[in-house]
Amino acid sequence: MKEISSLLGYRQDIKVLDATIRDGGLVNNFQFSDEFVRELYKTNIKAGVDYMEIGYRADKELFDVNKFGKWKFCDDDEVARVIGEKDERVKLSIMADVGRCNYKQDIQDRANSPIDLIRVATYVNTIPAAVDMIEDAKNKGYEVTANVMAISTAQEGDVKAALEMLCKSPVDVIYVVDSYGSIYPEQMQRIAELYMSYGEKYGKQIGIHAHNNQQLAFANTIEAVGDGINWLDATYAGMGRGAGNCSIENLLGFLRNPKYNIFPVIKFIEDYMVPLKEGGAKWGYDLQYLMTGLLNQHPRNAIAFTDSGRKDFTEFYKEVVAQD
Amino acid sequence: MKEISSLLGYRQDIKVLDATIRDGGLVNNFQFSDEFVRELYKTNIKAGVDYMEIGYRADKELFDVNKFGKWKFCDDDEVARVIGEKDERVKLSIMADVGRCNYKQDIQDRANSPIDLIRVATYVNTIPAAVDMIEDAKNKGYEVTANVMAISTAQEGDVKAALEMLCKSPVDVIYVVDSYGSIYPEQMQRIAELYMSYGEKYGKQIGIHAHNNQQLAFANTIEAVGDGINWLDATYAGMGRGAGNCSIENLLGFLRNPKYNIFPVIKFIEDYMVPLKEGGAKWGYDLQYLMTGLLNQHPRNAIAFTDSGRKDFTEFYKEVVAQD
Repeated sequence: MKEISSLLGYRQDIKVLDATIRDGGLVNNFQFSDEFVRELYKTNIKAGVDYMEIGYRADKELFDVNKFGKWKFCDDDEVARVIGEKDERVKLSIMADVGRCNYKQDIQDRANSPIDLIRVATYVNTIPAAVDMIEDAKNKGYEVTANVMAISTAQEGDVKAALEMLCKSPVDVIYVVDSYGSIYPEQMQRIAELYMSYGEKYGKQIGIHAHNNQQLAFANTIEAVGDGINWLDATYAGMGRGAGNCSIENLLGFLRNPKYNIFPVIKFIEDYMVPLKEGGAKWGYDLQYLMTGLLNQHPRNAIAFTDSGRKDFTEFYKEVVAQD
Repeated sequence: MKEISSLLGYRQDIKVLDATIRDGGLVNNFQFSDEFVRELYKTNIKAGVDYMEIGYRADKELFDVNKFGKWKFCDDDEVARVIGEKDERVKLSIMADVGRCNYKQDIQDRANSPIDLIRVATYVNTIPAAVDMIEDAKNKGYEVTANVMAISTAQEGDVKAALEMLCKSPVDVIYVVDSYGSIYPEQMQRIAELYMSYGEKYGKQIGIHAHNNQQLAFANTIEAVGDGINWLDATYAGMGRGAGNCSIENLLGFLRNPKYNIFPVIKFIEDYMVPLKEGGAKWGYDLQYLMTGLLNQHPRNAIAFTDSGRKDFTEFYKEVVAQD
């Protein structure tokens, strides 16, 4: 049973990372206005959020800059221009995917960048490449996380081997990523215990990035908090790919550290997130995401179902079962 | 830590109760068509649902029959006519509120009624009246539950006294009801432990009825399952007052008993729930419900906010904080 003190008190070590622009960018092709990003940054300062992930550092040889908003690439100069003067209280992060980021060329020393944290996204079977990226980023002076995706389809032995390799790298934080939104809190507790055992042995922090396919993104995040996980991803109004992420307004309401403030978050949602949704950006729990979550599948088919405006849920269920 | 066997196996004793017409009726003034109710009943048979709650047995002296649909009153003859031939596999229940049901007159013997189960809804401070209703219903041959509402604002000593009184009554099941959607899973575990300790001592089953103000209705329900609670309320597409309830499609996907079937549920949602929502019925998680949930308040102000089409979340936050 979780200590009730974790509900009424708080842990200083907890870090909240706002991933709205990065995971939400997967919803709208990273087409956020400069004003949106700047106001979000200011809001995160007021809300007490610790890190703001401002997008990807994607390889421009692989991705056409004319097809995506600038936050898929996050040029240092452009980030610095939009953010304006940096506030010490909110650090900036970008995500770099294994195989999709020309890191040796495109990531310069931290001293010359507004970015503080590089988050390396990897699958279990690309850990050596991830470790090379981690070492490169550490050598350049950044804080670094490793976000190990899609672990719900990986073998436990492989996950352990991945953790062992990452723990021997200079990475600071290792994330549990429930990419398919298929994990229940009872399972999250076991996964957290496994990751925490490595983290404690090797002095690494553990993080959690949840998806809302089964309406469990917030529940799994606070399960992880109760299990001792300190780095928590969330997004405004839960914006994120498919069923979205843990809503930051839920999370800040739960955390009892007085540094966190829900009111500026509510204001930003009213002023920016509601208009974004009314403008046609689509994310959040719906039946098609439950189906892929239940079947532990990548959400891509559910996203295509949503984008095409389909409503024939029974036909879609037959399709996803046939994929199994 | 929960036994993993509860995830991969199942407990025979679990009962799923579909409360769509009853709690969902609070959304649309019980204006469900006969076809809707009949098709829902057929769907519940196919889905393996154990009980279907078909509405309230409200006192017609207190409530104007012209202002509400028939499911607020659930006349036995009318229920029997709409349902047609009863199927042994799905039992029918109605809810009777303390102080709002003329039970001595309006509840006839079970032998003359299509109803199998009477659910007595009570606050902690009206238990003696609830016990009188429980005894009346038991004497008439019904299965009976006591649904103790709004426990998140009650003192623990009062809850224990209520449990003691209910356990000494002939009631079959005692429900944990998170009326305000303010309870976190860590707290639910403690509440479940308390209720289970009384249930085990007196031979009563325990149930859970959750609300989704903090996106935790499903999470709290499966937390309760893991804690040994057997009677589970859920509704199609989570339809219910304000932020709604635990979605039955989430719950049946989680339960591993092969008697439960998600496909007919998906079909009913496609055919009936989606049109209902498109027709203007409003329920489900939104920011205003998070606020009242966080502040442990009755959702009535959030419902009024929703009904009036307001979008000024920041103003609403100031209002609910001022209520505190």
